[in-house]
Amino acid sequence: MRTAFYISDGTALTAEAFGHALLSMFPVEFQHKTLPFVDTQDKAEKVCRQIRQSLKENGEPPLIFHTFVNEKLKTKITNCGGISYDFLEQFKGSVEQELKVKAEPKTHRTHGVHKNYNFRVDAINYALDNDDGKRLNQLDEADIILVGVSRTGKTPTSLYLALQYGIKAANYPLTEDDDFEHLDLPKELKQQRHKLFGLTLNAQRLHEIRSQRRHGSQYASMQQCRFELQEVEKLYRREAIPFINSTHFSVEEIAAKILAKTNLQRRRY
Amino acid sequence: MRTAFYISDGTALTAEAFGHALLSMFPVEFQHKTLPFVDTQDKAEKVCRQIRQSLKENGEPPLIFHTFVNEKLKTKITNCGGISYDFLEQFKGSVEQELKVKAEPKTHRTHGVHKNYNFRVDAINYALDNDDGKRLNQLDEADIILVGVSRTGKTPTSLYLALQYGIKAANYPLTEDDDFEHLDLPKELKQQRHKLFGLTLNAQRLHEIRSQRRHGSQYASMQQCRFELQEVEKLYRREAIPFINSTHFSVEEIAAKILAKTNLQRRRY
Repeated sequence: MRTAFYISDGTALTAEAFGHALLSMFPVEFQHKTLPFVDTQDKAEKVCRQIRQSLKENGEPPLIFHTFVNEKLKTKITNCGGISYDFLEQFKGSVEQELKVKAEPKTHRTHGVHKNYNFRVDAINYALDNDDGKRLNQLDEADIILVGVSRTGKTPTSLYLALQYGIKAANYPLTEDDDFEHLDLPKELKQQRHKLFGLTLNAQRLHEIRSQRRHGSQYASMQQCRFELQEVEKLYRREAIPFINSTHFSVEEIAAKILAKTNLQRRRY
Repeated sequence: MRTAFYISDGTALTAEAFGHALLSMFPVEFQHKTLPFVDTQDKAEKVCRQIRQSLKENGEPPLIFHTFVNEKLKTKITNCGGISYDFLEQFKGSVEQELKVKAEPKTHRTHGVHKNYNFRVDAINYALDNDDGKRLNQLDEADIILVGVSRTGKTPTSLYLALQYGIKAANYPLTEDDDFEHLDLPKELKQQRHKLFGLTLNAQRLHEIRSQRRHGSQYASMQQCRFELQEVEKLYRREAIPFINSTHFSVEEIAAKILAKTNLQRRRY
């Protein structure tokens, strides 16, 4: 199998994003290798040997997606026998022309500690403290409050919103202990109605997820899943709570859809 | 202030990664606008109006970083008066030539639900269940166990490793209740010694972080912070636990450094 390398003198997250997006257009399997913090000539020399080794083993040159700030290290890596793709270099000139400003590449600018960094750590702590309805006395601080029945993706979505965007997301479960026949919101949530956002799933998918946790239980039964989802969707409609069905979406997609629907203020760009 | 748009018929996460990395090279401030799921002609028309509006207000055309799969929508967006940067298009041809395979762009390939998706959700649940030493009976499942004194970034790092890479990270606090004079690891951790990874900080930074939580406490005092960090670093050395000082690093950088140091198997590419 051909190899794709993602190499940088920083985290290599940008090189990965570039390379993955590009390669995802091709119906070809790759062996992926990420090599972050290649920030000395010694390390670059070792990487060079890996590239040559890969060429030797595969008979085909590996693809190299890289985002070096240090020009000497870049030159070293691009001369080891791989096929190089340098996204930043490719576009730098045209952005310089457009902005009439010279580029000043520095390491750690993209994924380093910025002025907005504390927001994200605060948001993560907030999501953890306000996970699963643990507290109801901090909801005035929330940017958004996710609601839904058990196992519809509230927790991962809350954490992703915090990590990726610095958004403070609480989440509140409409649990199996509730009286689903007369489902209602606690008054603390009603006071924050404008912040509520509902998640839902197809019953079959919820049944599968719950069965992994408690196989054969009433909680995981198709009947129970179907009933809870039906009642919760009625509640969303009655209370005019926006919601999405996340059955076919990843956490990234759910979060992006929530942002698109709510015009939430992101604390990080 | 000039505007940078990140637009896609998908999550726009790739467009953001492209645009942010490129613009981070320039000492210029932008107003950033991300517009995901622009997947109908109607939505594209609305976006077009936003682009024209921005041009009118600023007197300068906005920069448009986009990653459309749908060619008609792309054509629409690139003809509204902004300056377009199309990273995928730029490199598609040369990768096609190299691979001798035609590109087959599809939406939701980069950030959709893949075969590896469940790994990530499992890893997030694992990180939550095994946060802060909550359990010691699931450590054989861990890919890595982060250790450190209170407030050194163990929890955000564990969550990021799970979300970004699908790595199962437990974390265990060496707490202020411990007898730091005779600091030792519990036997459950000793059995998993090869998985341990230490975090540490500069005392001044730890003092600041702890002071935000409990201002003026013994716990937050410089003396206590200095003492705990000194003892914990002794422990790391004595037990040959690899560790990093994360004072100047973001959670992305800490995670990438851990991967670089440990050769951990990532479950997601």
